Amino acid sequence: MTLTISYTEAVETAMAALGRAGVPPAHARLQVDLLVDAELAGRASHGLLRLPRVVQRIRNGVCDPVTEGDALWRGEAFLDVDGNRGLGPVVACAALDRIGERARRTGVAAAAIRNNNHLGMIGWYAERVARGGQALIALTTSEALVHPWGGRKALLGTNPIAIGVPARPHPFVLDMATSLVSMGQIHDYAHRGQPLSPGWALDAAGEPTTDAAAARDGAIAPFGGAKGYALGLAFEVLVTALTGAALGADVRGTLDATEPCNKGDVFIVIEPAGSAAARAIAAYLDAIRACPPARPGEPVLVPGDRGRDSREARLRDGIRLAEPVWREIVALSRPAQG
Amino acid sequence: MTLTISYTEAVETAMAALGRAGVPPAHARLQVDLLVDAELAGRASHGLLRLPRVVQRIRNGVCDPVTEGDALWRGEAFLDVDGNRGLGPVVACAALDRIGERARRTGVAAAAIRNNNHLGMIGWYAERVARGGQALIALTTSEALVHPWGGRKALLGTNPIAIGVPARPHPFVLDMATSLVSMGQIHDYAHRGQPLSPGWALDAAGEPTTDAAAARDGAIAPFGGAKGYALGLAFEVLVTALTGAALGADVRGTLDATEPCNKGDVFIVIEPAGSAAARAIAAYLDAIRACPPARPGEPVLVPGDRGRDSREARLRDGIRLAEPVWREIVALSRPAQG
Repeated sequence: MTLTISYTEAVETAMAALGRAGVPPAHARLQVDLLVDAELAGRASHGLLRLPRVVQRIRNGVCDPVTEGDALWRGEAFLDVDGNRGLGPVVACAALDRIGERARRTGVAAAAIRNNNHLGMIGWYAERVARGGQALIALTTSEALVHPWGGRKALLGTNPIAIGVPARPHPFVLDMATSLVSMGQIHDYAHRGQPLSPGWALDAAGEPTTDAAAARDGAIAPFGGAKGYALGLAFEVLVTALTGAALGADVRGTLDATEPCNKGDVFIVIEPAGSAAARAIAAYLDAIRACPPARPGEPVLVPGDRGRDSREARLRDGIRLAEPVWREIVALSRPAQG
Repeated sequence: MTLTISYTEAVETAMAALGRAGVPPAHARLQVDLLVDAELAGRASHGLLRLPRVVQRIRNGVCDPVTEGDALWRGEAFLDVDGNRGLGPVVACAALDRIGERARRTGVAAAAIRNNNHLGMIGWYAERVARGGQALIALTTSEALVHPWGGRKALLGTNPIAIGVPARPHPFVLDMATSLVSMGQIHDYAHRGQPLSPGWALDAAGEPTTDAAAARDGAIAPFGGAKGYALGLAFEVLVTALTGAALGADVRGTLDATEPCNKGDVFIVIEPAGSAAARAIAAYLDAIRACPPARPGEPVLVPGDRGRDSREARLRDGIRLAEPVWREIVALSRPAQG
């Protein structure tokens, strides 16, 4: 059963839930904006579904809602951040603001963040930076859920990348995991009793399976075969080289409610070349959209197009949420029965 | 017909060919090392096959073998480079040396290069930087050869990425195009009259084809479907945002012998966190190699493993080259008949 909730009601209820958990309003605003924006963009797996776990992690002492982390310039353009178990978007935005300002002078600046909670939908950061006129490359790691190409065990995170580039009328925003599907999708198929497509996942014994329930204890495939595997592995290794974060099967705390989060996040902010390049990019993206489609009536999309259409529709018509998800958030927003 | 040429003979002959074309020895050494290393790594498409075109481009005035480009610090950590039509690896290595030195102080430094010739196998740069103890992200664009996912026309470059990370005993090096196959492979299949696998390419009318000859005038597929397309597009847009280079169908000069090369190159050098992370990465890569394989007897590979094995074998046994390729290089290395 699905409910339709207005944007405003979703934000206010989520703000109240985080307020009751001791999150300062400015921090709650970042966390809620991130989760609700994922709902608007049609990415429910990174949406309000995640809010109860944020609250549980605060209660369990593995998330400190007040800190913004401790940051130290390891060089003039490199910010080393201990997130101090802060809220993912709070620590990340504090770091992004500092390196964004620094990059205006140095041309490029990076932040390497460890000991920070889940970043959520990383395209949100790319959009934020690109709207401010700078380019961003964002990487973050996760629990090992993905098997190496040709292997039987989950040894890699879903290791997404986001790239944001200023453009008109909208910034260009890429946000993609290096897994073929998300573990959220596997759980969703299992919940609905639907079979997976062949090639999506392995079971706990490392055998290919289309049984979603069996896949939850196994591993999901990298996207794009050997190349997608190689790319996800490169991101895992690069993030650890820069942050000192845990690797592979040692990563904890992005899916559970009890373990300190020991993955790493890397942001690189870069000043773009200028307005002539921005105009050329806008024209190019329009040429891509105007490419003759392989299937009549299915126009070629640019990354971000679908999310933007979805945001517009949901801001107008409301967000659709599974009833149990919404009930839990409403319960968290109210004084405990006494 | 294939010949086997020793590493030393290949290097000396190629050096002589570039010397006769007016390339200073230090510059010839970089260009030859790059091309011969591609042969050693088993990537003939980026190997000595490309040398005659380098010579033709010098003769045609679209490659200046003497310049190292003009570089200007656009910020303390951002080097803006006009390649002045220099040799790809000469301009790139000059820029890499400067940003590598700068990054030791600033933590991260980037170079955005325009008006530079073909970089060749970009993993070569990643290996060079990683052996020096720093991490590298390298991006470069190319002529439009790849169709958007769901589109019928070539509008994207093959837009490779390389990532190098220091590790023991070997650096970690990723080098991959965002196309499913290379145009070199298509030409090779056409030459041998072999059919392509379905899904690799479109013909000039934008229809799927397995006819390699027809695919030469069409478009090749992105790797990994919609995600690989999105990634390649993000690289194209990011490189232009930073370098001001041409985009999509306007790109020239990486395949022909007559047009100035107007694509862009981006390098980002980053100081790694330290030796504990390097040890953890080495252990992790070994755990990946030890992953139970999907097919018995086919161990899981880490990017770079196959190239390293190939280098060892070919340094010992020689490089195998198509006879016409070798004859052409030998002819270029000798005084013109009088």
